[in-house]
Amino acid sequence: MKITISQKEFNKSLSNALKIVERSTTMPILKGIKLEVKDNRLYISATDLLISIESSISGLDDEYENGSLVVESANILLEIIKRLPDENIKLNTDLMNNLNVHCNYSDFTLNGLSSDEYPEWPEVDSNQSFQIEKDLLMDMISKTEFAISNDQARPVLTGALLEIDNNEIVLVSLDGYRLAVRKSKLDNFDKNISIIIPGKAIRKLLDILKTIKTDSENIEIKSSENHIVINMGETTMVSRLLDGHFLSYKDIIRNEYNTKVTIDKNDFKLALERASYIDREGHNSLIKLKIESDRLVIRSNSDTGDINEIILCEIEGEPIEIAFNTRYILDGVKVIDTEKINMYLIGDVHPCIINPENDPMYTYLILPVRLA
Amino acid sequence: MKITISQKEFNKSLSNALKIVERSTTMPILKGIKLEVKDNRLYISATDLLISIESSISGLDDEYENGSLVVESANILLEIIKRLPDENIKLNTDLMNNLNVHCNYSDFTLNGLSSDEYPEWPEVDSNQSFQIEKDLLMDMISKTEFAISNDQARPVLTGALLEIDNNEIVLVSLDGYRLAVRKSKLDNFDKNISIIIPGKAIRKLLDILKTIKTDSENIEIKSSENHIVINMGETTMVSRLLDGHFLSYKDIIRNEYNTKVTIDKNDFKLALERASYIDREGHNSLIKLKIESDRLVIRSNSDTGDINEIILCEIEGEPIEIAFNTRYILDGVKVIDTEKINMYLIGDVHPCIINPENDPMYTYLILPVRLA
Repeated sequence: MKITISQKEFNKSLSNALKIVERSTTMPILKGIKLEVKDNRLYISATDLLISIESSISGLDDEYENGSLVVESANILLEIIKRLPDENIKLNTDLMNNLNVHCNYSDFTLNGLSSDEYPEWPEVDSNQSFQIEKDLLMDMISKTEFAISNDQARPVLTGALLEIDNNEIVLVSLDGYRLAVRKSKLDNFDKNISIIIPGKAIRKLLDILKTIKTDSENIEIKSSENHIVINMGETTMVSRLLDGHFLSYKDIIRNEYNTKVTIDKNDFKLALERASYIDREGHNSLIKLKIESDRLVIRSNSDTGDINEIILCEIEGEPIEIAFNTRYILDGVKVIDTEKINMYLIGDVHPCIINPENDPMYTYLILPVRLA
Repeated sequence: MKITISQKEFNKSLSNALKIVERSTTMPILKGIKLEVKDNRLYISATDLLISIESSISGLDDEYENGSLVVESANILLEIIKRLPDENIKLNTDLMNNLNVHCNYSDFTLNGLSSDEYPEWPEVDSNQSFQIEKDLLMDMISKTEFAISNDQARPVLTGALLEIDNNEIVLVSLDGYRLAVRKSKLDNFDKNISIIIPGKAIRKLLDILKTIKTDSENIEIKSSENHIVINMGETTMVSRLLDGHFLSYKDIIRNEYNTKVTIDKNDFKLALERASYIDREGHNSLIKLKIESDRLVIRSNSDTGDINEIILCEIEGEPIEIAFNTRYILDGVKVIDTEKINMYLIGDVHPCIINPENDPMYTYLILPVRLA
């Protein structure tokens, strides 16, 4: 194997591949990264068997040789590459599967393994693909990923539901205490899709999308029965899907309410954050909301002390007192990016719905905590 | 106790005081922060018995009452204050020693303790004080603090020596493997001082100096037999000193050499950093330097692989091969801020001296590692 590449591009591809590598895997070869030269392109790939990633970069001169290897100490490779100047890098392998790297006056060799034992890139047989804007996809993920369940007893909820139906794309997550739904219009795709993407894949995807420059704005997504393929220009990610049926989330969201609150997002967020510190020691810290006439009052107390926050806001309907897990309500409020938030309440044992003001494309539903 | 203060100033003073608080102390009262109102000023203080810090801020209206308390959950107080708006804050205590904080529409209470049990502020009897520019003091500390020893078997080396003699101020640290000496002219002070400041105090001082704005550029330092007092405008830090005699560091530095290297600082630093990753697993990673004709060659190897870095530079005198602990040599090279570095070598078992080019005010001396 032999190729000349740019330091910048190699650095970027390696750091994306490293995001997928599990440091504590029981299969030593998975701690490495596979490098392969084919027709003067370098393919950099990694997998944890659930998620696979591959980036490719083009050779800069005609001196190349096809071949491949797995670099064992992939993080050391990255740390050194990161500190090389922005110049051409020559990669070379010897018969012992060692990788030799040369750049300017720097020369180093890292031990490698034969790539024969490395898992095959997953074959995905799919003929349905759609395009989505990168920023929109990132927004959909960041508004829902925190409500993905970690409870392995209900595996289906450890993933997020991606549904496309009637020119609308929806990403849904729920963990038994809250539900997050982010929708958007999706033109030019008239098929139906309903798949469950593992939470880990969703989070890694967000990490990788953040590193992608604006010049590849459109992301192409394909799905088969068992896999999702996300094509981000030079980088492709594939994840296995979760089996099973997701909860019928639409039935949980009711549009009736007895109280409607319109409140400044930032005031609400900061008051919730301040209140959250009073009860930081407890794992299930609680806040009480009292909603009446022209104000929402937040109260929290613990062995440390107590706090009382008043936020003036618009109230429509009946006064109500209700309690929430502080973190759960904060998670939903934090990600809203409109100036004001709407809250819809039915009663103190009924779920509360939070939306960005006048924006039905995001819905966060949260169960209250029953007070003794 | 009662006073009205500015959120910004209170936030800053609290976060400085928190830097001194030890979370794992056996004396619960030391986990708290003492607040005291005297003549319409609020004094915020903390101590770990070795180091004490006090800041003061002025009251903003005439409604004040003298008094004091210790706030137990000092970090919670800081986290909430940090998130309050930039407005006036009213502090109040009740008869139960609780602290009530009021700002705009926020109100909270934290449990407190009587300040009767809190350690007294150390009385320091000294009539000799000198002034030093903040940036110079920070530079002196950052160029020496990393060579302070952690070895409790030789307590005197767990501190840094501060010497003033003949209108020159010197800060010195050494740990048996390397020695760092940073000097500067000091006018308007003709006394002699020789004290040993605990490493912990030196590092906390650097942390606190970083938070101080440019408008209090001059730092006043006083010392007595047992204490050093550092006066930074509204904030004062006091530390106990270490007893004993520091090593006679001047005898270690010899001005003779057989080889002199003049090398680009940045090239040298990056090459050392790259080389350091090859042997990251080992605690005492080694690099070998080969200095000859017009180049310095860095080599390192381990089970992971090997590296070879060539840096073109000016060599005067004999060629030499010598080995160092990678971290030790990097520590000294990193802090140098001139474009070029001078290295002076006698032989492969003799200490090597590193200086900024043409600048005798900083000297870093490092022992080589003998190769088998």
